[in-house]
Amino acid sequence: MKENKYDDPAFFEQYGKMNRSQKGLEGAGEWYVLKTMLPDLRGKDVLDLGCGFGWHCKYAIENGAKSVIGIDISEKMLEKAKQINSLDGIKYDNVALEDATYPTETFDVVFSSLTFHYIQLFEKLIQNIYQFLKPGGYLVFSVEHPVFTAEGKQDWVYDEAGEKLYWPVDDYFKEGKRDTEFLGEKVLKYHRTLSTYLNVLLKAGFKVTEIKEPIPSEKMLQDFPEMKEELRRPMMLLISVQK
Amino acid sequence: MKENKYDDPAFFEQYGKMNRSQKGLEGAGEWYVLKTMLPDLRGKDVLDLGCGFGWHCKYAIENGAKSVIGIDISEKMLEKAKQINSLDGIKYDNVALEDATYPTETFDVVFSSLTFHYIQLFEKLIQNIYQFLKPGGYLVFSVEHPVFTAEGKQDWVYDEAGEKLYWPVDDYFKEGKRDTEFLGEKVLKYHRTLSTYLNVLLKAGFKVTEIKEPIPSEKMLQDFPEMKEELRRPMMLLISVQK
Repeated sequence: MKENKYDDPAFFEQYGKMNRSQKGLEGAGEWYVLKTMLPDLRGKDVLDLGCGFGWHCKYAIENGAKSVIGIDISEKMLEKAKQINSLDGIKYDNVALEDATYPTETFDVVFSSLTFHYIQLFEKLIQNIYQFLKPGGYLVFSVEHPVFTAEGKQDWVYDEAGEKLYWPVDDYFKEGKRDTEFLGEKVLKYHRTLSTYLNVLLKAGFKVTEIKEPIPSEKMLQDFPEMKEELRRPMMLLISVQK
Repeated sequence: MKENKYDDPAFFEQYGKMNRSQKGLEGAGEWYVLKTMLPDLRGKDVLDLGCGFGWHCKYAIENGAKSVIGIDISEKMLEKAKQINSLDGIKYDNVALEDATYPTETFDVVFSSLTFHYIQLFEKLIQNIYQFLKPGGYLVFSVEHPVFTAEGKQDWVYDEAGEKLYWPVDDYFKEGKRDTEFLGEKVLKYHRTLSTYLNVLLKAGFKVTEIKEPIPSEKMLQDFPEMKEELRRPMMLLISVQK
């Protein structure tokens, strides 16, 4: 099944209200870390898998990329992307990640933000990406952390007073579907272990260049004191690998 | 501080009763995975950091290693190692991991089982290991998993009937000391995030070759049904890297 929750009108409306939708990259808490993992984009051919509103496509062109293809399964997302992030050099395509095909060695950089945990056939996708990339090219992506996706409810355990006690981990080695809630709607995600993420990449032929588990910046912690809870458990996993 | 709990008589006695102490490698649930991560040992010079009773040193010689040095901070452990696992080619040294020094490019394989989470200065240790290794040499090690060490108590959360509800994660990004209990005694360990483990290795110059989060074998799950709880959260992280 190819998850396309973003074409659900209620969900799309809620998503559109998020900081990362309204403010773009600066509204995404992990971006200040993720952007340091990108290679120099000048003159590069870039593919963005699950491009959403196109903020990363715009960033790539503004930072010197020669061409960017942004693909997404959601028509609504791409309509919005074309409205707010249309620049010369960007092409948006309405296609599911699993169905995307390109000639061998087409791209210098493949990027994906918070999309791979919606994908059932991760290994096949990574094999495709390896094929799309030029030798020496990079895949840089973020996913929800296995600690975050394992148990399924994606919520803290609270005490009687409503205080967060800890983050529950369960069923870690039971990979596969998780019926989660996000923005008040049911969303199907896929849990994978850390070792699956990494070994699928290594097995495909990639070399691991960097792994990050981002935490809020000092400024974010000052401006939004409630974000210190992000120091209690990892929410995202950022990975950079090279062909 | 260099942790040396194993010279505490009460702790040592308890440790000696564990399956992995009495039965050697076959009594260690993760060994069937860890051994597949070792390179061919024939003709190799091997260093075992935190060798304990010397089971891995013996394994290395029996599998063709030319020489093995096993070091441990605990005199009692090495006494026992010399009693039960003395073979031609093995040399046991009573030295803390942090204080071990060898000429540049001395070893083909550096190995360590469940010891690095006792080490405060992990980065310095990894830099030393990189220096000890010959080009192309391997470091293969196991540690307690960051999910296992984060919260500190190293225990499940139980319901009122004593059933295991989930594994608690907290303070994940607060790296450093954890006062844990092991075999009924207080033991000081160090928690590090997954990204710290991996990036220290990458920064030192290593190439990641394999990452495993071991689960019990089918046979273990049949023989010891209570081990199915090991499928609920990761307890160990096994890493293989190459210079």
